[in-house]
Amino acid sequence: MKKEENLIEWLTEVAFNANIYDYGRYPIKGCGIWLPKGFEIRNKVLSIIRELLYKTGHKEVLLPLLIPRDMLEKEAKHIAGFLDQVFWVTKGGDSKLEIELSLRPTSETSMTYYFKNLIISYRDLPLKVFQIVSIFRYETKATHPLIRVREVTTFKEAFTFHSSKEEAEKQMEEAFNIYSEFFKILGIPYIAVERPSWDRFPGAEKSIAFDTILPDGKSLQIGSIHNLGQNFSKVFDAKFMRKDGNYDFLYQTSYGISERVIASLIIHYGDDIGVILLPKIAPIQIIIVPIFFEGMEETILNYSKEIYEILNVAGYKVEIDERKDVTPGEKFYYWERQGVPLRLEIGPKEIKENSIRFVTRNGKKWNVEKEKILKEVKTVLANLEIELKEKVQEEMKSRIADITDIKEIEKVIQNKKFARFNICNKEKCGVYFEKFQGLKFLGYDVLLKKKGKCIICGEETENLGYAGRSY
Amino acid sequence: MKKEENLIEWLTEVAFNANIYDYGRYPIKGCGIWLPKGFEIRNKVLSIIRELLYKTGHKEVLLPLLIPRDMLEKEAKHIAGFLDQVFWVTKGGDSKLEIELSLRPTSETSMTYYFKNLIISYRDLPLKVFQIVSIFRYETKATHPLIRVREVTTFKEAFTFHSSKEEAEKQMEEAFNIYSEFFKILGIPYIAVERPSWDRFPGAEKSIAFDTILPDGKSLQIGSIHNLGQNFSKVFDAKFMRKDGNYDFLYQTSYGISERVIASLIIHYGDDIGVILLPKIAPIQIIIVPIFFEGMEETILNYSKEIYEILNVAGYKVEIDERKDVTPGEKFYYWERQGVPLRLEIGPKEIKENSIRFVTRNGKKWNVEKEKILKEVKTVLANLEIELKEKVQEEMKSRIADITDIKEIEKVIQNKKFARFNICNKEKCGVYFEKFQGLKFLGYDVLLKKKGKCIICGEETENLGYAGRSY
Repeated sequence: MKKEENLIEWLTEVAFNANIYDYGRYPIKGCGIWLPKGFEIRNKVLSIIRELLYKTGHKEVLLPLLIPRDMLEKEAKHIAGFLDQVFWVTKGGDSKLEIELSLRPTSETSMTYYFKNLIISYRDLPLKVFQIVSIFRYETKATHPLIRVREVTTFKEAFTFHSSKEEAEKQMEEAFNIYSEFFKILGIPYIAVERPSWDRFPGAEKSIAFDTILPDGKSLQIGSIHNLGQNFSKVFDAKFMRKDGNYDFLYQTSYGISERVIASLIIHYGDDIGVILLPKIAPIQIIIVPIFFEGMEETILNYSKEIYEILNVAGYKVEIDERKDVTPGEKFYYWERQGVPLRLEIGPKEIKENSIRFVTRNGKKWNVEKEKILKEVKTVLANLEIELKEKVQEEMKSRIADITDIKEIEKVIQNKKFARFNICNKEKCGVYFEKFQGLKFLGYDVLLKKKGKCIICGEETENLGYAGRSY
Repeated sequence: MKKEENLIEWLTEVAFNANIYDYGRYPIKGCGIWLPKGFEIRNKVLSIIRELLYKTGHKEVLLPLLIPRDMLEKEAKHIAGFLDQVFWVTKGGDSKLEIELSLRPTSETSMTYYFKNLIISYRDLPLKVFQIVSIFRYETKATHPLIRVREVTTFKEAFTFHSSKEEAEKQMEEAFNIYSEFFKILGIPYIAVERPSWDRFPGAEKSIAFDTILPDGKSLQIGSIHNLGQNFSKVFDAKFMRKDGNYDFLYQTSYGISERVIASLIIHYGDDIGVILLPKIAPIQIIIVPIFFEGMEETILNYSKEIYEILNVAGYKVEIDERKDVTPGEKFYYWERQGVPLRLEIGPKEIKENSIRFVTRNGKKWNVEKEKILKEVKTVLANLEIELKEKVQEEMKSRIADITDIKEIEKVIQNKKFARFNICNKEKCGVYFEKFQGLKFLGYDVLLKKKGKCIICGEETENLGYAGRSY
């Protein structure tokens, strides 16, 4: 199946074929199923973000899924941003509930409501917590596997509480560094933008987002960081005692990532055959395929097992495909679709030569002497990780087109790219892009600056902005 | 606070004081919060059950929280058992949903609905999966922290699919062994009973339950295993091709445990001061408390840090309480309430003697030469684990009273015990206990048999049954 032609169909098919995620066989729109291999990959990815968060002093907690309507409605801008997307529990058994309960769309309200109890003074600050949970959005438009779902099953949401504006701003930087590191470890290419003032997270004073540009030229938000100021603490009366003995409202930030990260891994690294898994996160890193030949079955299997032992003892995640009723060709195709990064083939030729045939998931093939196997496997997997990551970075770069004239934008979109340009901070310039049907203005690049003229009003600026189609 | 006097109040207070679980500060009845240390303990406990399940070929998956009403209603007995406990989502945003969605009360229906797609023939069997998720019960009666909640946040539910009745029965045994081992590792004492035919899990043909008897004499079900026969596969038309080419309906089992296991740990091991954590699951195993003495602060702190290094390098989870504005007595009390199994004190005496004072959470105190510390710590923690477990086992045994005359039962209950007796299999004998207000007949001991006369009808039997108050 061609990845470039219909990305979502491709994603649906390859994720299921690789035993990762099933989307379509459950009778509620926007609800998918994590299959065993997908669950393992999800665990690996979560362990990376968990480690980064633990290391920086974040504590993991778990708050209730249900948020009462009155709690959710306290922060007016926040609820306004979510109200039409909330699932409401209205009945318990046959009884109508006195207060409707929402399935959390995000947890700023419950976190503020709860943690204000535990914060008495500046001594209790900063407080940094996170949880990994399901959140719910009643999406009325098209839903897509892992990308736009009604049950987001893998939402890592962090919440921090501070004694000053400056401390909250510093926390924004820490969060930025954590996410940058996380995406770097996974090799997911991104642009980091400050969202424009008219398109922030509901209730936030500042929103930074990480977006990745997919092969169809559309952007996908894969992480976001918000400075909530005192917006939530004021409505929840969440105060702390300052060092000087006076009371102030808490300063807060929140930041989140979701299973869109796993969608990005599948999409960026995959090809027309299927998934390609980074050695770092592959549940099976090496598959050994014995090429059975009449009369030599036992010799070949024993040799395969010997190789298996060597690699298994060295700590690699390795398996042998011993099936006798399946042809080698079928096995190759099967393991390619599973995304296994390295295949080792052992047939009569290898037995004779005392070698192993190496085949990488990105198409390289060669034979290696048996005594060199451990060294070679180590090198191959390390190089593969680098090659795959570099390819993905380059590909995303090629999807961004710099333009200096607004007239060029339609062509950029037609070519399945995303436009980058100089733009000033004025709202009327940013919202200009909404007049193009379906275009979104992402905001201002946080890391990249360049002098030039605003593409709309011509004013001098250093800002680089992005516009294009978006998921 | 006296544990024996009001167990639930005690549990609520000590769990919060130990930074484990907060019950009462969230405005929805039956919804609690996992605090950082509780989340760590929960992870440890889950990693134990996960390992046991992985080792026996169970794969972890994740299915949607929402189950449509028509799916839940397919198995009549099942839904009848849950209908008055279901939370219903009826609205998305302002729109009324066409089909009401339940928050899963348990996942037999969605698991059967889904996995029948992946099972074609006997070759795909057995299939064994599990998930660890929140489930929801609209409890109308009193709710209790970790024991009877509306959001069960830590539900490990396993589902298995088989090609024959015999295989499903063998699976029941495997599940039994897994849970026995799990409770043994945690040192949770239990009785294992077959639930009577009139009190099985809705939709099951056989139910085995693990119950623990708490200090107030009430039983708490902490695990259950069900043979579902073909009840679910028939209504979901879940068929497979047998070896002989004919089709048959799948045979299924399901089994679950919840955060009641953690409630059991807290309750069985704790004392009037607070929680006592097994060294195996304690987030902090050893707390070092420097006893600061004027003029010797630095010496004492350096010595403490030296001890810290030795233990930390050896892999123990150890911390120093360096606070200067808190008295040693307050620190002792604080760490006792945190349930830390071993406290090391270092004051002028220890400096002089080149020793360390050992104080275990169960009250033993002695001094140890510095060079013997590693060996001593190892022995102490291992012994403590054994001592704590033995105490708990003995205590539970003392809460079971054998009776031969039904007249004795009221006295047994008054003495905060649980009654054991010979009883035949007849329903009219088992239901007899319902005539005593609030009494529950648990069922027939699976492991323990003894010849005698049925306490109700006098018939000869080998069955031992249990009745008493129950959570």
